[in-house]
Amino acid sequence: MSIIAKQKRAAADSPIVDRLQSLLCEDLDAVEDILAARAASPIAMIPDLSSYIVAAGGKRLRPIVTLAAAHCAGGANAGTHALAAAVEFIHTATLLHDDVVDESDLRRGKPAAKTIWGNSASILVGDFLFARAFTLMVETDNLEILGILSHASTVIAEGEVRQLAAQGRLDLPTEEYLAIVEAKTAALFEAAARAGALSAGSESAATALAAYGKNLGLAFQIVDDALDYGGTTAVIGKSVGDDFREGKVTLPVVIARRRGSAEDHEFWDRALDPEKQTDSDLPHAIHLIRSTGAAEATLTEAEAYAGLAKSALSTLPPSEYREALSDLADFCVSRAY
Amino acid sequence: MSIIAKQKRAAADSPIVDRLQSLLCEDLDAVEDILAARAASPIAMIPDLSSYIVAAGGKRLRPIVTLAAAHCAGGANAGTHALAAAVEFIHTATLLHDDVVDESDLRRGKPAAKTIWGNSASILVGDFLFARAFTLMVETDNLEILGILSHASTVIAEGEVRQLAAQGRLDLPTEEYLAIVEAKTAALFEAAARAGALSAGSESAATALAAYGKNLGLAFQIVDDALDYGGTTAVIGKSVGDDFREGKVTLPVVIARRRGSAEDHEFWDRALDPEKQTDSDLPHAIHLIRSTGAAEATLTEAEAYAGLAKSALSTLPPSEYREALSDLADFCVSRAY
Repeated sequence: MSIIAKQKRAAADSPIVDRLQSLLCEDLDAVEDILAARAASPIAMIPDLSSYIVAAGGKRLRPIVTLAAAHCAGGANAGTHALAAAVEFIHTATLLHDDVVDESDLRRGKPAAKTIWGNSASILVGDFLFARAFTLMVETDNLEILGILSHASTVIAEGEVRQLAAQGRLDLPTEEYLAIVEAKTAALFEAAARAGALSAGSESAATALAAYGKNLGLAFQIVDDALDYGGTTAVIGKSVGDDFREGKVTLPVVIARRRGSAEDHEFWDRALDPEKQTDSDLPHAIHLIRSTGAAEATLTEAEAYAGLAKSALSTLPPSEYREALSDLADFCVSRAY
Repeated sequence: MSIIAKQKRAAADSPIVDRLQSLLCEDLDAVEDILAARAASPIAMIPDLSSYIVAAGGKRLRPIVTLAAAHCAGGANAGTHALAAAVEFIHTATLLHDDVVDESDLRRGKPAAKTIWGNSASILVGDFLFARAFTLMVETDNLEILGILSHASTVIAEGEVRQLAAQGRLDLPTEEYLAIVEAKTAALFEAAARAGALSAGSESAATALAAYGKNLGLAFQIVDDALDYGGTTAVIGKSVGDDFREGKVTLPVVIARRRGSAEDHEFWDRALDPEKQTDSDLPHAIHLIRSTGAAEATLTEAEAYAGLAKSALSTLPPSEYREALSDLADFCVSRAY
């Protein structure tokens, strides 16, 4: 089982994620089993679509944080595995709905599920996975954890609506940008880390790990937003420009526009309207984000949160799990340089 | 408060729903307060959109069933009110997502929320209300009830996907149609009635009321599907033809097609393809559904479930609540004649 399950997880492209995947190998295998079993349904479209996005999916960062948090707080158990799977289902449901909302045809360089199965299937299978996440959580028999994760789900949806309402607001204040990121991304990392620690029975570790999760989530999303313009390097990954094409107002754009000339203002105001964008706009946007120092400034902001994430770990007893989580916060930022 | 809240509920157009609304007046006011308080958010789009669909919404049939079930089982309490509100939020979230999936511009003769705020807002506010429903349920501190409602939410989503997969299947077996209705509509009535009874502390009443809820839900949806073609009368309500325009395969269509000539088969196969439909198709569809006796046969099917709903109540002690629930099952069918 172990080898098969491990193959299902995406190659991590990073020694630290590899290390966490090895450290948590048995736990992650248990989580994969739950993900496969609970995405099952006699309606073929459900396992087809969810295995496309869940099984072929990402690095399992959120389950990793849930599990490692539990180990920092005393050890993972069957309840932790169910929670880690629930967190991944919530994340997956969000991705499915995001694809429809963002009108993006690609996700991680592959056709988005909605491109293959259509918007309706993406919406409804997202609902299914979200409901399944709650059933999994109920089975862990812990009302405190259920409260934490249902509250996080509310905050995520609220953050997504907030982002939608901010669309086209090129003068978005940094604070508003950060509030959106905290809600739509950091809240789930925070809840995952807190729930993991609580599943191991430690209230005090839960507080520290929740702070870790929240700041890691902030750093992670801010870096992601920088990477959408290639970070600070000339190497442009396959997913560069997604946010730009969707007209999303993110921190690199906010800073570059704020620091730019009147001409730059005009450029941003036109180019971030998907209707008015031309093919040559993305290279120019990347140029402006680098030349104004907006890429650096964005990553400096992310570094601050990664630093907060690491210091939050300091009250926990030293362990290989604590060390790996600390390194994960570093990696989170370093991948953009 | 009482008068204001009562005004918010839609006029029921039916003496029995009026009677239930009066019987449950204080409980329903408490539910309205929760709905308003929990749809609140600093992101204006959330209360705007949800008050449009929640407050201006329907007859509160699902909260009524939840509350009346609790009264049949010993009495409603604060936990019952929270559950009734949670059930209404789950229902509302489903409506918001359905509007996007069905591509329908109207709901109950008014512009659908997505027509005003767009698909993205409907999807995300639906997610928000669904998450809020779970938070409300967690606050009632009852894991058994949480399990019932999270399972029901999974079944609903599964039923919606099943309906999507059945699109264009003009030879849909009656059993498959009924399985879809049981999942997408009856499961929530069943869970609402069971949860209401459990909130009052009666396991034995819960079993009887769950059977009532399930069969009421089946009767209700089957009649709704008949009403989309005007039922058996010549009076055509404002929402006639919605299913037809969306190409939904429902029981009246399945029966009319099965009983029809080769020419009728050709008509249905073409007319239920939204791309090929013409303006004169709806009157002809209504004619076929009546002339083949499909409208009558559909309502006979619904009557059987209404009968099962009523007999499920027989083990409960007599009360005005039990009597009103029994009359509600009758009304459910009679509105289509």
